[in-house]
Amino acid sequence: MIYFDHNATAPMLPEARQAWLEAAEKFIGNPSSPHRIGSRADAALSDARERLASFLGCDALDIVWTSGATEASNMVLHHFAQLAPAQSEAWISAIEHPCVLETAKSYFSKRLLLIPAHRSGVINIHWIRERLAHSRPAFIALMAANNETGVLQPWREALALCRESGVPLFCDATQWIGKLPATGLGECDFVSGSAHKFGGPKGVGFLKCPAKGRVEPLLYGGKQEEGRRAGTENVAGVLSMVAALEIREVTMRRTREDGDLKMENRGLTQSSSSSSAFSCSPVFGSSALTQRLNWREQFERQLLSSLPGAAIIGAEAPRIWHTISALMPEADCQQRWVVKLDKLGFAVSTGSACASGREEPSHVLRAMGHSTADTSRVLRFSSGWETREEDWDALLAALAKLSRRS
Amino acid sequence: MIYFDHNATAPMLPEARQAWLEAAEKFIGNPSSPHRIGSRADAALSDARERLASFLGCDALDIVWTSGATEASNMVLHHFAQLAPAQSEAWISAIEHPCVLETAKSYFSKRLLLIPAHRSGVINIHWIRERLAHSRPAFIALMAANNETGVLQPWREALALCRESGVPLFCDATQWIGKLPATGLGECDFVSGSAHKFGGPKGVGFLKCPAKGRVEPLLYGGKQEEGRRAGTENVAGVLSMVAALEIREVTMRRTREDGDLKMENRGLTQSSSSSSAFSCSPVFGSSALTQRLNWREQFERQLLSSLPGAAIIGAEAPRIWHTISALMPEADCQQRWVVKLDKLGFAVSTGSACASGREEPSHVLRAMGHSTADTSRVLRFSSGWETREEDWDALLAALAKLSRRS
Repeated sequence: MIYFDHNATAPMLPEARQAWLEAAEKFIGNPSSPHRIGSRADAALSDARERLASFLGCDALDIVWTSGATEASNMVLHHFAQLAPAQSEAWISAIEHPCVLETAKSYFSKRLLLIPAHRSGVINIHWIRERLAHSRPAFIALMAANNETGVLQPWREALALCRESGVPLFCDATQWIGKLPATGLGECDFVSGSAHKFGGPKGVGFLKCPAKGRVEPLLYGGKQEEGRRAGTENVAGVLSMVAALEIREVTMRRTREDGDLKMENRGLTQSSSSSSAFSCSPVFGSSALTQRLNWREQFERQLLSSLPGAAIIGAEAPRIWHTISALMPEADCQQRWVVKLDKLGFAVSTGSACASGREEPSHVLRAMGHSTADTSRVLRFSSGWETREEDWDALLAALAKLSRRS
Repeated sequence: MIYFDHNATAPMLPEARQAWLEAAEKFIGNPSSPHRIGSRADAALSDARERLASFLGCDALDIVWTSGATEASNMVLHHFAQLAPAQSEAWISAIEHPCVLETAKSYFSKRLLLIPAHRSGVINIHWIRERLAHSRPAFIALMAANNETGVLQPWREALALCRESGVPLFCDATQWIGKLPATGLGECDFVSGSAHKFGGPKGVGFLKCPAKGRVEPLLYGGKQEEGRRAGTENVAGVLSMVAALEIREVTMRRTREDGDLKMENRGLTQSSSSSSAFSCSPVFGSSALTQRLNWREQFERQLLSSLPGAAIIGAEAPRIWHTISALMPEADCQQRWVVKLDKLGFAVSTGSACASGREEPSHVLRAMGHSTADTSRVLRFSSGWETREEDWDALLAALAKLSRRS
């Protein structure tokens, strides 16, 4: 099988597996235990906290380990539901992952305002600016990169607006971290991430939150994580996650240090969105990234020429290097494409894994103004660091073959 | 180091590590993904669900995978806080783990009633019976075995009372599962467990809840786990947990099938509690269990004779085979015992790992009527399946040596 569903989950890196195994051997204690075996586990967690914080650009004590991004998002929404004034609003982008959007609906109900998106898939930053001129929400939630379309969001611009108006920003960076450099994300008040999206194990993630001031826990109980998250820490999972992120960050940084900056500000971060001019800089061009971006762009061009009637969702917006949301020709519905590609040995998705079990049309595509009919024609191809150029070629050949057949 | 802190966390079983590794290789997909790689992961989860359900004696669909017992407990309390009538009470045993007690305080506040405990460490079942005669709480929470004292609780009696009166019972079985047979626990409405307490990995656990009827999620988002718990499932963690439990259950069952029942109803389940006559039957005697119980009892006898002034907490109650809560002679405070034993190569605890970071006296010992001064003199020795007789002997020698010195 050739795997094009990395946005759902990525295979584990050998280094992450090794780190997990080593941790499971070396750090067998409960980090809260009062003896050396416990202290060693605690020290390993502290070290991991420092390393993650250095990538994000924040304090080690800002980091809370969680069971994944879903728990992290729930923790943020619960925090504001508990501590924000009773009438205050939550402004959430309309294209957030269900772990933010559904949680916001549950906790904020009628006090929830959706930040609209442009047809390009970028949220409307002007909407935020204009609203902030006469109103203050309890917080704003804006993801870094969309999981269905790969469209990069203007979180830096949103952060600047939030800073000016004293509104906290929550940035779900689950699809960004490990694929683009994490640096700068630590400036957001809350940031969530998930290990299994970048080569770490499933079941572990983190929330960056303000070390100072009260953070209301979602999980009550023991006093772990400075009283912010009860439950014995997943030591091996955390060490494995940080080992995976380290591999990704080093890959991205190495090239930068080598001076290969010629591709900077192109492709990965091109600010050519007609509907929303913004830049996601600084995102460093790196040969590893730009090479992969080239493969994806080449695939897109060839797809459009081989399959008349196909289109790329969010084509005019800056998009992350590994995601394609393709509007397929009307010949066949998305489920049948997935099944046929599966038989030919390709794993692709109809949208987010979380949404794909449901019958409802994608809320992301609907927010972008696509019709329900359109949403049933969309396939998502998401590559990974290990995807090769020939994998893209093979996928294209399979799509062309299936298209001729139907 | 000789490890006597299994109640805080147990080292991972080789079989659990192997299961994790295999799962991380074989089941790389997201169980919610629509292709074969996803379906394989989903099928592996379903198989694990069947296996766990068979141990508990419940339906596979009753099982929700969580990040541990803390999340599972929080989920139960949140569920009732959301769905129970606004004025209804929560009756929680006074000796519950903080992940139940603190969560109950947070969600139920003044509607929380604590079920008192006898001096023996057993909760007062008559209190429940009497109260139920004229009142109905939203639910009752009673743990199976206490984490600090090892005292077994009359959860079967509580279940019978709950059944009669139509009140749901939540049983936190974290310290029971994997140490005593899980069979029968599945009859409780809600049951929580945690992998790392019985040789599985940290960061994974489960909640048994009613498959029928609405269960309010704690984590909102994707529609995983029948809409009861959002977030990509920790496939490798779950398979590893179930592999570990299988080893423990097979060990306990094998002897039973061999007909070695002569020790049944002794020791492990002796109903000699003066303050609360009840039986925890059926708990099967097995040579593996009774041998370990013999070692512990021998250690206790020798401890009491070597250290004048020492006492065993809950000595008159039925206790699980691996836990000793020892009231040490007044010569030294518990922290110094822990440090000195640590230097001699023994890992022991002052109480629960969750409580040991705090300054406050143990709420469990306080509920049993012990003075604050007493609580500062308590050490917990918790053995595991792999602890040998000579480990107990070595611990005793170390304690005797330290006692002579002081």
